[in-house]
Amino acid sequence: MAQQVLIYSQFPKALMVRIGERYDLLDGKGRPPIETFTAEQLKPIRALITAGGQAIPAAVLDTLPSLGAIICYGTGYDGVDFAETKKRNIVVGHSPAANAASVADLAVTLMLATTRRLIPADAYVRSGGWSGKQPSPSMRPGPGMTGRKIGVYGMGEIGRKIAARCAAFETEVAYFSRSRHDVPYEYHTSLASLAEWSDILMVAVRAGKDTQHAVNADILKKLGPQGTVVNISRGSVIDQKALVAALESNAIAGAGLDVYEKEPHAPDALTKLPNVVLTPHIGGHTVESHIAMQDCTLANLDAFFSGKPLRYPVA
Amino acid sequence: MAQQVLIYSQFPKALMVRIGERYDLLDGKGRPPIETFTAEQLKPIRALITAGGQAIPAAVLDTLPSLGAIICYGTGYDGVDFAETKKRNIVVGHSPAANAASVADLAVTLMLATTRRLIPADAYVRSGGWSGKQPSPSMRPGPGMTGRKIGVYGMGEIGRKIAARCAAFETEVAYFSRSRHDVPYEYHTSLASLAEWSDILMVAVRAGKDTQHAVNADILKKLGPQGTVVNISRGSVIDQKALVAALESNAIAGAGLDVYEKEPHAPDALTKLPNVVLTPHIGGHTVESHIAMQDCTLANLDAFFSGKPLRYPVA
Repeated sequence: MAQQVLIYSQFPKALMVRIGERYDLLDGKGRPPIETFTAEQLKPIRALITAGGQAIPAAVLDTLPSLGAIICYGTGYDGVDFAETKKRNIVVGHSPAANAASVADLAVTLMLATTRRLIPADAYVRSGGWSGKQPSPSMRPGPGMTGRKIGVYGMGEIGRKIAARCAAFETEVAYFSRSRHDVPYEYHTSLASLAEWSDILMVAVRAGKDTQHAVNADILKKLGPQGTVVNISRGSVIDQKALVAALESNAIAGAGLDVYEKEPHAPDALTKLPNVVLTPHIGGHTVESHIAMQDCTLANLDAFFSGKPLRYPVA
Repeated sequence: MAQQVLIYSQFPKALMVRIGERYDLLDGKGRPPIETFTAEQLKPIRALITAGGQAIPAAVLDTLPSLGAIICYGTGYDGVDFAETKKRNIVVGHSPAANAASVADLAVTLMLATTRRLIPADAYVRSGGWSGKQPSPSMRPGPGMTGRKIGVYGMGEIGRKIAARCAAFETEVAYFSRSRHDVPYEYHTSLASLAEWSDILMVAVRAGKDTQHAVNADILKKLGPQGTVVNISRGSVIDQKALVAALESNAIAGAGLDVYEKEPHAPDALTKLPNVVLTPHIGGHTVESHIAMQDCTLANLDAFFSGKPLRYPVA
């Protein structure tokens, strides 16, 4: 009989088809498992699949007494409480780099769409404003990419791919991360220094307690009135209230966001702004990326149920 | 006294400020000059500035008996009738490569926005659809960039810059142009062959009689139901009616367009489609690009009025 695996987060059904061919999936649909299943059903569950960003509180772990593995679908694991997992001997795996290209591509999409004001431009053509010779929302030219200073915050797999893509646009690229990497970009020793230098700040740092609200009012002020911020990491890295205030007061020029503090929820204060481009956390959402994440998830589950170390453990 | 220069096309005032500091500008605002000025006023005019794509018929040239130079603001010069200019000893200049980076950047913006379905994604977040857990327009993941086959049609300055940018997204790049170039991309000997090979066709060829409707129903069919076409060249290069039909019947997946057959006019058949991204011919519309185009325009005018060959003549 196939091993049982709990699906902890809410995933589109199609994404779990391949995994369902090998494992017997119990779909919790994003709700606390005990609301969907009986304690008896949950008791033997040894592994679960989660979206990484979604918190798994101790109270949930208490309902899963046999749990031995938390497998994050995607690269993030900020919802995991490692003090709890260690105490309970639960191993944690993820899908490192599987979605990096897809996320980096979306970061660049958001950067270009925000700085070229793509959303108002498309609306102007669609509404007939252009045909009718009404005033264009892009009347005043904005700065292009050539010579722009792009600061990448975080130099993991995604940060590197963002940097490589941005460099192809004849820009200058620099970065800040906890440690210096062997990459051909200038290193800044603080986020404040990077923001001060940057025209565009690309947030690609791993989310966690140490990066919570790292991009705050002060950092945004340093970015300046011509500045743009793009976030494809996690909503928690930016102080969203400070970001809205900076956008409303033109303390910065614009923002491209794929992630938000409380998902799925982009506050009205953000959605009514013209100088933002907003996507519903679709960074890793491409065919190739999902196949790679499924490969990692299957490899992790297979290893775990064979009694081996996870194939892609969280470092 | 400053030399007089006619502004033939309609340009935002701000773009002509630097040129106006050195020349006495007569602004025709895009209408036939004789409707705005008297024959007497037009008689001594020796030079005009035009948008390159706008036709200058013989009837207009007849009203400008002293005309000796047509200076195109931008790289294109498809509105110029060279049989007529030759007959009248009118030299033609342009701004080669001045807007190439800006146009190439927009081409990539359109490519990414179209394939990642950015417009519906942004609308889904803004409308509250995401917060309300309504079905997402991007529920089914699309293909990302990794491994995609990008065909570049035209390998001039803009085509090269598009190719270089696309290559940074871990894609395969190939091209077709009249002649083979010394570039690190596979050469196809026909547009049909390139379209057959490509997932995404980037139209960057110079407009002219030989490229009129080069991208027709047959080429679009070869591109196929997963295919995307992006055009930042001129509307005339694509058979727009065939394009609309291909988009409506899902013969291709999507299109990103900055240019149209009749500008400023994107037909309703296009603007109502969800699988297109439409911009109002803003490819060259960045601060740096305008400065470079003004530099070229001034250099051409200065040379002409000093009796020298144009600094940037049309080859």
